[in-house]
Amino acid sequence: MTAATEGLSLNQATTRHWATAEVIRGCAEAGIGGIGLWRDAVEQLGTARLARLVRAAGLTVTSLCRGGFFTAADAPGRAAALADNRRAIEQAAEVGAPVLALVCGGLPPGGRDLPVARQQVTDGIAALVPQAESCGVRLAIEPLHPMFCADRSVVSSVAQAAALAAPFPPAQVGIMVDSYHVWWDPAVAESIVAAGPRIAGYQVSDWVSPLTGDVLMARGHIGDGCIDFAALGGALRAAGYQGWTEVEIFNERVWATPGPETLRTVVERYRRYLAGPAPG
Amino acid sequence: MTAATEGLSLNQATTRHWATAEVIRGCAEAGIGGIGLWRDAVEQLGTARLARLVRAAGLTVTSLCRGGFFTAADAPGRAAALADNRRAIEQAAEVGAPVLALVCGGLPPGGRDLPVARQQVTDGIAALVPQAESCGVRLAIEPLHPMFCADRSVVSSVAQAAALAAPFPPAQVGIMVDSYHVWWDPAVAESIVAAGPRIAGYQVSDWVSPLTGDVLMARGHIGDGCIDFAALGGALRAAGYQGWTEVEIFNERVWATPGPETLRTVVERYRRYLAGPAPG
Repeated sequence: MTAATEGLSLNQATTRHWATAEVIRGCAEAGIGGIGLWRDAVEQLGTARLARLVRAAGLTVTSLCRGGFFTAADAPGRAAALADNRRAIEQAAEVGAPVLALVCGGLPPGGRDLPVARQQVTDGIAALVPQAESCGVRLAIEPLHPMFCADRSVVSSVAQAAALAAPFPPAQVGIMVDSYHVWWDPAVAESIVAAGPRIAGYQVSDWVSPLTGDVLMARGHIGDGCIDFAALGGALRAAGYQGWTEVEIFNERVWATPGPETLRTVVERYRRYLAGPAPG
Repeated sequence: MTAATEGLSLNQATTRHWATAEVIRGCAEAGIGGIGLWRDAVEQLGTARLARLVRAAGLTVTSLCRGGFFTAADAPGRAAALADNRRAIEQAAEVGAPVLALVCGGLPPGGRDLPVARQQVTDGIAALVPQAESCGVRLAIEPLHPMFCADRSVVSSVAQAAALAAPFPPAQVGIMVDSYHVWWDPAVAESIVAAGPRIAGYQVSDWVSPLTGDVLMARGHIGDGCIDFAALGGALRAAGYQGWTEVEIFNERVWATPGPETLRTVVERYRRYLAGPAPG
């Protein structure tokens, strides 16, 4: 890791078609010091082996994606979600991920009651906190863009995530800020500053418009869209956030690009748009 | 108009491939008492002729779509937007539309500065208020879903619209609440109630997930999606809103359906999901 890439982490979803071992090697070669992991990779390699690979490459695991999806039409569904989250917390601990990102879940199929769904999220998080604490894993509520409210997350803003997290200590329940999901919010900067020590992670991709096709896959490299990363970064610094910046891009075109080329772009854009002011 | 359709208006965008004269006749035959017009129809028929047609059919014009798009990269662009809005206000007055819906505009091409864009919206509305007042037309700021923040509206919530409207009397600057754009907002009910007399109109379509393809065209008939119209309607009643409910559905499949069939569905769904309690 060089000074110019200090603080940069690659979420492996950005290089989805690269095997995890290749992602790890690629990051090390590109001077990227952090890696965000996904559970399918964890389950494929096993936590012990994956942790060894990461350590041997000199990388730091910055987060595990993902837990959550607490909402369900019935009690067995919610119990199954909790069981899956408990496994996710264990996996995070085993691979050394300090943070488990929570995508909280949308409306259950056929459901229309947002307050009930939001209560299910509240209850789910509360049920997980003791285990997360004993495992040394921080839960990070990730507000998702409101276009995912129906099917992925009834939590749509940093302020809403902060209200959900409020009953718990910041070290147990934090907030994952993802630029793509929150940039539009007129209150995002003040919400981030107000959240202060709750900010548990910062994921980035850019918003490229017009939005067409699969809205899950529309994210762009930093600088290809319209998000003001200087403004978001300023809010995060004002909140006291000094953690990693994790580049997470869902985009078929990026996925079709050879991994090393993607990593070069990630590093170049990080230097240009995201890295803090050069030291002295 | 029968009691069961009292308060129902059809926004002509719902039957886009129907000529305006046919929409007017269709509404009258279906017992739909209100019609929301679009400017292309107004310009095609001329305001005087259109006003006569509507009046002869016994309909009420409930709104004109639309003004706005205040944001632009340079001063000539913003001046052109204002000129277009002035024409829209005249057209609204000439066709008897009490309300001009404002879709405020997104970031200018290449732009990333949301506060600047929002200031342009503020300035644009302020510039129009005197003319709107003298024409007897109410400007209605329409918050759009945050997925349109980049390219259509930097105004994304009822609360944000209310803050924009605050400097002006409610009779001059109100808020157009569109279910599709605001349903996800955890604060939508309290924002509507707080907006009270600012609520200038209520447009409805349903959110059908998953969201795919052209996100502009994904809206569904009331009841086909996940929006809790009872909750939204309750908030509007609590706000004191007693105006029209205007069904506005952008959907290629709906557009491909014969107009009379669409109107039957609109009426049936209105009775089932939207009409207030039957008079005792």
